Amino acid sequence: MRLALVPSTDPADYRFTHTLRTRFSETDAMGVVHHAAYLLYLEVARVEFLRSIGHPYDEVRADGSDLAVLESFVQYRRALRFDEVVDISLMVDNLTGTTFQIGYLLAVDGETCATAVTVHGAVDAGGRASRLPEWIKGPGLRGG
Amino acid sequence: MRLALVPSTDPADYRFTHTLRTRFSETDAMGVVHHAAYLLYLEVARVEFLRSIGHPYDEVRADGSDLAVLESFVQYRRALRFDEVVDISLMVDNLTGTTFQIGYLLAVDGETCATAVTVHGAVDAGGRASRLPEWIKGPGLRGG
Amino acid sequence: MRLALVPSTDPADYRFTHTLRTRFSETDAMGVVHHAAYLLYLEVARVEFLRSIGHPYDEVRADGSDLAVLESFVQYRRALRFDEVVDISLMVDNLTGTTFQIGYLLAVDGETCATAVTVHGAVDAGGRASRLPEWIKGPGLRGG
Amino acid sequence: MRLALVPSTDPADYRFTHTLRTRFSETDAMGVVHHAAYLLYLEVARVEFLRSIGHPYDEVRADGSDLAVLESFVQYRRALRFDEVVDISLMVDNLTGTTFQIGYLLAVDGETCATAVTVHGAVDAGGRASRLPEWIKGPGLRGG
Repeated sequence: MRLALVPSTDPADYRFTHTLRTRFSETDAMGVVHHAAYLLYLEVARVEFLRSIGHPYDEVRADGSDLAVLESFVQYRRALRFDEVVDISLMVDNLTGTTFQIGYLLAVDGETCATAVTVHGAVDAGGRASRLPEWIKGPGLRGG
Repeated sequence: MRLALVPSTDPADYRFTHTLRTRFSETDAMGVVHHAAYLLYLEVARVEFLRSIGHPYDEVRADGSDLAVLESFVQYRRALRFDEVVDISLMVDNLTGTTFQIGYLLAVDGETCATAVTVHGAVDAGGRASRLPEWIKGPGLRGG
Repeated sequence: MRLALVPSTDPADYRFTHTLRTRFSETDAMGVVHHAAYLLYLEVARVEFLRSIGHPYDEVRADGSDLAVLESFVQYRRALRFDEVVDISLMVDNLTGTTFQIGYLLAVDGETCATAVTVHGAVDAGGRASRLPEWIKGPGLRGG
Repeated sequence: MRLALVPSTDPADYRFTHTLRTRFSETDAMGVVHHAAYLLYLEVARVEFLRSIGHPYDEVRADGSDLAVLESFVQYRRALRFDEVVDISLMVDNLTGTTFQIGYLLAVDGETCATAVTVHGAVDAGGRASRLPEWIKGPGLRGG
C-alpha cells in the first residue's frame, strides 16, 4: 500500500477546484449518489487540473505514456444527492521517481462531503511501470 | 433511420437467451434500474451470443474490423428492480451488405419487461463503414 | 411503439441547448464514447431544460409524480471522443394526454454526431401511468 | 480514517468467492477495465455473499436500516481486460458496535489483479449512523 497522503478538510490546503453537478443517473435506490460515482468525479477534476496547468490529458496519453491509477481511497462523510453542485478541490504531493499522490476534498456549499486520495504511476504503452515524465516533477504539478 | 425490426414479445421467436441479475449500482433514485443500463444488458447478451456461435467478440475485434452500434431503440414496459433475474433473448434479422439488426426481449419470470432493437454495421480500424465479414452473412448468425 | 418524432439535424429547429464535455470514464476499449453514455447526456440535457423553464426535476419528483422514460432511440452518426465538447439541443413535441416526446441533436463544433428521441409518460408513486401535469401541457414545455 | 484491514493475497484467507465476467461497457480508452468498475464488482460480491448467508440485501434494506459504504480502498495490481473471468473473494473483519470492514481479493486464473477494502456502517432511514443489526454481530458474517 502506497497510500500515505492524508487529505485535509480545509479548502485553503488545495490549489485547484473544479465544480460539477451530480447527475440523476449517478444516484441509486438509496436515493443518493452511488459511492462508485465519486471516482468518476475525481477523474473529471484531474482532467480539468491537467488542462489548467497546460498538460491536457489527451496530450499526456499521446506521448505514449499514461498515468495509471495504482490505488484509490474515498472517505464518504455526507451523502451527495441528485442535482447538488459539488466543489472538488485537489492537490498533488508525495512524488517519488515513479509515483505521485493526489488528495481531494469534495464539498457542497462549504460542507465537507468526502475526502479522497488517488495514487498514480506512469506506465508505458505495454502497461509496465516507467519513470514519471519530467514535467510532472517540475513545479507545475505541485504548485508553489 | 435504419431501425426496421419489430421485436416480438413471444420467447419462441428468439434463438438465444442470456440470463443476468440486475446490480444495485444500476438502480437510480426512482428505486428501479436506470433506463441506460438496459443498453449494457443488451451488449452483455450480444457478447455471450457471439461466443455461443463460435465468434467471441475479442476475436471479432482482433480481426481489425469492429461491429459498431449505429442505432439503439428500447421500449420500457415494466421497470426492472434491484436483484431481479432477467432473461435477455435475442434474434438477428434484416441483414444488408453492411448492416444487420438484433431484436431483444427482456423478461423476468416470463413477464415482458422491455423489448429492444440495435442496428449494427462493420467499421474498419479508421471507423469507416465496411462490408460485413463473411461469417456474419452465413447461417450461423441468423440460425437455421 | 410510440416513437414518432423525427429529430432534425438543423440546430435552428431546437429551442434549448446544453453543453457538456465527455468524460474519460465514458469511453470504452474502442477508444470512443460508449453508446450507452449518450442516454446519460440526454438526461442531463432534460434536467437542465426543466430547470431553465422553472420546473427543476427534483420539484417535479417531489410532486409525487414522475416522468418515466417509456422509449429511447439513438442514431449514432459520428463517434464522440474523450474530452470533446458536445452541444445537446432538444425540443418537445407529440404531446398526448399521457405522453410527450423529446427530440435531440448532439453536435461537436457544428458537426452532427447523433440524433435521438425519448418518449416520456407521467407515472404515479406506484409506477402506474397517470395524466400529465398541467404545466407540461402549457406553452412552457413546447415553447412559444 | 477507519480503514485498518490489510487484505491478503492468499485465497485461503477468504471465506466466500463470487465469479463474474468483465463487460465491454466497463472498459475505457486505455483498453482495460476502468478503475471505478472495481467498486461495482465489490458490491456485486457483497450482495451475493449476503444472499449466501441467508440475509439478502433487499431484506436488509427492507428492515429500515441500510449498510452504507463509509470508506473504500482499492489497490490495482494488474489491469483487468474485457471478457476476463474474475474471482472476487471476500472476508469480514474489524467489527465494532457500528462498523465492520470487508477485505477483497480479485484474481484471474489465480493471478492477483487487485485487493480492496470497504468499511461499512449501519444507517437508519434518515441516513444517520445506527448500531449494527444483531445478525451482523453473530458468527454468520465472519464465519468460523
